[in-house]
Amino acid sequence: MALRVQKYGGTSVADIECINNVADRVQKASDQGDKVVVVLSAMSGVTDSLIGLARQASETPDKRELDVLLATGEQTTAALLAMILKSRGYKAKSFLGFQAGIKTDKTSGKARILDIDGENIQQTLEDGYIAVVAGFQGADADGAITTLGRGGSDTSAVAIASSLKADVCEIFTDVDGVYTTDPRICNNARKINKITYEEMLEMAILGAKVLQIRSVEFAKKYNVPIHVRSSFNEEEGTMVVNESSDMESVIVSGITLDMNEARITLKRVPDQPGVSAKIFTPLAKAEISVDMIIQNTRSHGETDLTFTVTKDDFERAKEISQKVAREIGAPEILTAEEIAKVSVIGLGMKSHSGVAATMFQALASENINIRLISTSEIRISCIILAKYAELAVRTLHSAFGLDQEK
Amino acid sequence: MALRVQKYGGTSVADIECINNVADRVQKASDQGDKVVVVLSAMSGVTDSLIGLARQASETPDKRELDVLLATGEQTTAALLAMILKSRGYKAKSFLGFQAGIKTDKTSGKARILDIDGENIQQTLEDGYIAVVAGFQGADADGAITTLGRGGSDTSAVAIASSLKADVCEIFTDVDGVYTTDPRICNNARKINKITYEEMLEMAILGAKVLQIRSVEFAKKYNVPIHVRSSFNEEEGTMVVNESSDMESVIVSGITLDMNEARITLKRVPDQPGVSAKIFTPLAKAEISVDMIIQNTRSHGETDLTFTVTKDDFERAKEISQKVAREIGAPEILTAEEIAKVSVIGLGMKSHSGVAATMFQALASENINIRLISTSEIRISCIILAKYAELAVRTLHSAFGLDQEK
Repeated sequence: MALRVQKYGGTSVADIECINNVADRVQKASDQGDKVVVVLSAMSGVTDSLIGLARQASETPDKRELDVLLATGEQTTAALLAMILKSRGYKAKSFLGFQAGIKTDKTSGKARILDIDGENIQQTLEDGYIAVVAGFQGADADGAITTLGRGGSDTSAVAIASSLKADVCEIFTDVDGVYTTDPRICNNARKINKITYEEMLEMAILGAKVLQIRSVEFAKKYNVPIHVRSSFNEEEGTMVVNESSDMESVIVSGITLDMNEARITLKRVPDQPGVSAKIFTPLAKAEISVDMIIQNTRSHGETDLTFTVTKDDFERAKEISQKVAREIGAPEILTAEEIAKVSVIGLGMKSHSGVAATMFQALASENINIRLISTSEIRISCIILAKYAELAVRTLHSAFGLDQEK
Repeated sequence: MALRVQKYGGTSVADIECINNVADRVQKASDQGDKVVVVLSAMSGVTDSLIGLARQASETPDKRELDVLLATGEQTTAALLAMILKSRGYKAKSFLGFQAGIKTDKTSGKARILDIDGENIQQTLEDGYIAVVAGFQGADADGAITTLGRGGSDTSAVAIASSLKADVCEIFTDVDGVYTTDPRICNNARKINKITYEEMLEMAILGAKVLQIRSVEFAKKYNVPIHVRSSFNEEEGTMVVNESSDMESVIVSGITLDMNEARITLKRVPDQPGVSAKIFTPLAKAEISVDMIIQNTRSHGETDLTFTVTKDDFERAKEISQKVAREIGAPEILTAEEIAKVSVIGLGMKSHSGVAATMFQALASENINIRLISTSEIRISCIILAKYAELAVRTLHSAFGLDQEK
């Protein structure tokens, strides 16, 4: 008998028929004798249409009240699933965020979970109930309703799994698991059976949208085993776990592609102390997050400074940069929107040298020019021209031996 | 400076434009220096469509979970109004039932308010905020969400007004106030300026749908002055208050009509002790509430027993009655669905005789036959054939001097 936390995303609860399918799966786990906590997202599209309603009420809807509004989405699906389970003769009870003891900070719209008081749910499970929890939401110290941001239900599920010391946190979604790269780009992509939290984190940051980043951080911190799997079939998906000896001995686990960045270069910036702060402080104040930063030395006390931002922030970042450039006396700004960031990720990089060399050679073999490079302990990212994006992914996928056998 | 509780019904918050109109009115009260607590219903139609959704999930939706689902309706309007007020530069904060300290019993779907801890709202008002409360909902001792039944937002508003010792509880609705009778039937109907709780209670019970019955009981118990008025104009509506010397000295305040009853007669029931219990116990067990009961004496140790039930319960009541009739040896059952109950209501009846006589004479003058009669201290009701319903209302309205001057 296991304790399982199962999270179902918006496409898995899109309508009553889908929720009935979720009930089938929950019922099966319960029939096996497992204790089940179900965490649900809102029906797909509902959160967006609630945001639309809020925009009709106010151009910039108050964040506290927006959370109150958005929380109705998960409240609806949780109530409906509990109804269905009960009508099938199962004991089930819905929990809203505050009822599930999910305590957050006061950051409306993207609150962080501070603590979970799992006693309510624990007791309910012991009484033989299936617990159905509205994901994405919690309550702050004053009892105000908060939400955890896009994909927050993943974090709800992992946090609850952690507080209950669940055997597994199953994330049911519309894909079969985590892939070595995007199968729509590379038809040799393979489903990964097991991946570490660190690798998953890099992949999530780089745009693999299977799991919310914070949920992976949470799982890593509290060592919660995550099973990412499809809600439409019975196949095993991808286990996200701590590094262990039985991991596949691969150096690179996956290739990611992020087309959502744009590049800004300030040419001939005076090479003086404090000049970087002058550029990046106003960007930070405008809540623009900067991804890669590269500074090239030039002669004559001048330097070129390049950074990337998301495309959403590009226009604002460009304006701010132009203003700063005038102030600090940098004569020229170059920008590029048609870029792509391709990354290789692998825990094996820690102990294997030569990954960067292989990456650069592979790209060079296809005449793909690298514009910027950045690295972390388990990741190497290159900015290239957008038109080479898919070719680069397929080339790297093959170069690192990730192609599936045909 | 007054403390005003304002309740707006579903038609007053039907869409964003309507909610903006509500905001105008709230803003006006706030600008006058009044402290304002707003209690909102769900957008009109929303509760019904949520019930429809629940019925898709389960033929007989679990009541606890239905409450969780229905509560989203008022949560939505409360969040939207608070957003609008804030975007206009006012301090405003939404409260769900549990946040407003509304504590109920555990009767899902028609919970009763046990207590209100108004401290949260009180503090918010003192801090200069407008409090926007989701009506219709509360929480039981375990923190589960409960709802107060159809029209429950009226009761929320009155209960909050009572706990805050508000100067007035304004019920904004789509009519101008309480009328002497239904203006759609009798175009001489007059708006009543002032009416007692007792009279309002009788009128609500008899189908005047302006206020939820329980809200009037609550207001009477705690002496909360209610002002029923239109949300579409600035006119004074109807004050519902305790009896006072400045009341209009009328004997009859209003005439009501209820077309939603049906009659069942068991003929020649053995006139023995315990026989009534045999008839009405199974009806009570089936949760069918019986309105009028009349027993006519016959000869030969037999009696005729007649009662009325709502049309919704009629078929079930008929079946049960037929079964009981066989058991107790009553040879015949008569039923009638085409009936109407017309009632005259007035606190003046307590001290004035002759009201019944006037009523019977007025009906007789139009050749309207009375089938059943029942009375309370301040009400006389007659069952007549449905086809005479409107004529009876107009005749009685005129007979008791309620017609407005032309």
